[in-house]
Amino acid sequence: MAERIGKHTIILPSKPSVYGYASVVGKAEGEGPLSKEFDKAYNDDTIDGCPTWEKSESALHKEAVSRAIAKADLSPKDIDLIMAGDLLNQCIGTSFGIRELQIPFLGLYGACSTMALSMALASVLVDSQVVNTAVASTSSHFASAERQFRLPLEYGGQRPPSAQRTATASGATVISHHKGNTACIEAVIFGKIMDLGIKDANNMGAAMAPAAAETIQSFLNDTDTKPSDYDLILTGDLGKVGSELLIDLLIKDFNIDISAVHNDCGLMIYDLEEQDMHAGGSGCGCSAAVVNSIIMKKLGNGSLKRVLFVGTGALLSTTSSLQGESVPGIAHGVLLTNGE
Amino acid sequence: MAERIGKHTIILPSKPSVYGYASVVGKAEGEGPLSKEFDKAYNDDTIDGCPTWEKSESALHKEAVSRAIAKADLSPKDIDLIMAGDLLNQCIGTSFGIRELQIPFLGLYGACSTMALSMALASVLVDSQVVNTAVASTSSHFASAERQFRLPLEYGGQRPPSAQRTATASGATVISHHKGNTACIEAVIFGKIMDLGIKDANNMGAAMAPAAAETIQSFLNDTDTKPSDYDLILTGDLGKVGSELLIDLLIKDFNIDISAVHNDCGLMIYDLEEQDMHAGGSGCGCSAAVVNSIIMKKLGNGSLKRVLFVGTGALLSTTSSLQGESVPGIAHGVLLTNGE
Repeated sequence: MAERIGKHTIILPSKPSVYGYASVVGKAEGEGPLSKEFDKAYNDDTIDGCPTWEKSESALHKEAVSRAIAKADLSPKDIDLIMAGDLLNQCIGTSFGIRELQIPFLGLYGACSTMALSMALASVLVDSQVVNTAVASTSSHFASAERQFRLPLEYGGQRPPSAQRTATASGATVISHHKGNTACIEAVIFGKIMDLGIKDANNMGAAMAPAAAETIQSFLNDTDTKPSDYDLILTGDLGKVGSELLIDLLIKDFNIDISAVHNDCGLMIYDLEEQDMHAGGSGCGCSAAVVNSIIMKKLGNGSLKRVLFVGTGALLSTTSSLQGESVPGIAHGVLLTNGE
Repeated sequence: MAERIGKHTIILPSKPSVYGYASVVGKAEGEGPLSKEFDKAYNDDTIDGCPTWEKSESALHKEAVSRAIAKADLSPKDIDLIMAGDLLNQCIGTSFGIRELQIPFLGLYGACSTMALSMALASVLVDSQVVNTAVASTSSHFASAERQFRLPLEYGGQRPPSAQRTATASGATVISHHKGNTACIEAVIFGKIMDLGIKDANNMGAAMAPAAAETIQSFLNDTDTKPSDYDLILTGDLGKVGSELLIDLLIKDFNIDISAVHNDCGLMIYDLEEQDMHAGGSGCGCSAAVVNSIIMKKLGNGSLKRVLFVGTGALLSTTSSLQGESVPGIAHGVLLTNGE
């Protein structure tokens, strides 16, 4: 049975398993450094000719979930609950993506932290035997996000160097009480909203870094561990600006140096220089695709043993920004291990 | 420890308690038939002069949560987790409302089903001892919803008789493993997305009725109970059109007649004739305020003993409607009892 330790961390003694996982991505992501790691990269961001970007995102989401379930040798009727979300208004990327699967559905919103949130919640519910098998999934799409949050692609808007690119990507994890051979989830932490007053919606890495710092230091403190106890502390997605800030903040405020073990999904999914991706990737689907590809593979083959995955989200909308509001951040954490 | 029975229902043997609850509403809701039941009704939907409707909604949400926590004789630091959401894009009604409370936050999106979703999830996590005390809350605001989903109020748009009015309201429930004296939650059910192809976004009751029917019949079937085993089967919010459809659907498809025990939060919050409220109330805050006022009071004083609360949500956005999509519905259920 789950046990709370310290202030916020929840230990999962049954160590729920990653029983299946999948990631599917768009063209730019398929041309990036993780090209060979994803289950499928589409040549075209319409995702096989969907007539709108929103439908493309839904198709991507459905594909990731369906593949993860199939890779677990299960069918949708074997899944007790799906916990999922995305960035689109009213989370339509998810609801229209998964409606045909007919799985009981728990809708989540945590901006780009949603993959960590859904994995954390699914693991807790599996550990507590509330469900036997659950799916955690998220999606994002560059073109649907640009139209909704910034400007339609046709406008040809320029983005500042601090901006991150919303990844066209979706990832899904099947979490089960049955033992898998990929990885297991040993602990989770749900974060608090942190708002240090950043108002630049083109610099979300900076807005989310304090939340990531808070969640990481809480987790290390609660579990009495230090950065060197992890092979990787993986944020998703702070990008270049936010990652540098996170490392500085943790040193300055908490005397914790994670620089030797830190990486960020937004820095891994693109070659920032070659692909001209400014500060890196972002979006619900970015960390979902990175975690559900190279990270799970490396946990499965033992080249990674302990990964603290911390999803970070910026809880803003276009309306809140236009009304002069700051950008609150949140970060949720999941401890993935190879079960040793 | 939680036990799954039948296909989808989750029994909570520890019967988590409603340890505190509160509801705050706007002007029209304060002039309706439940006027005396709410903790506070504002005279003015700006909510003490907030400069934008979105900030008004956040203020309303914060007030409901703060009051529920205070009525439970607790302070925000005593709350392990808040599960909350609203209808605004990226759920800003919630995130800006609760950010100062500094409680670990799990963001939910289930459209108007979110109150049932948040209560169900909070109860499961309390029953599983993952948390000791959690808050479930939602909000909605007539003016912020009109501007976002339909037309700004200044336009003076007319609504068809099948349309429901988004309530300016927020409700919060403190759910705890400590015994309260109001009510307890004995079982929950998470629903599936149901889509029968309804495309009229002004007739959301009709779009949500099939989901409500599915969840109610699943719950009755899983628990081997019949409508007369409940004092009340309370949907939120189908309004007039959707409620009639629900009763018809359950008779026709499942031979279940709930007409003697059914009511709908959207029909309770306004006097439809006197207040000219078309098909009734809706919005995340409508069922939140009705459940966290008259329903909890009646459970507390024993005049209600078993209430099956089924929150219903329409998982659409303005974009999905403009793109010709149908309106998928979802319904989540919570069995509230007086603990006998």
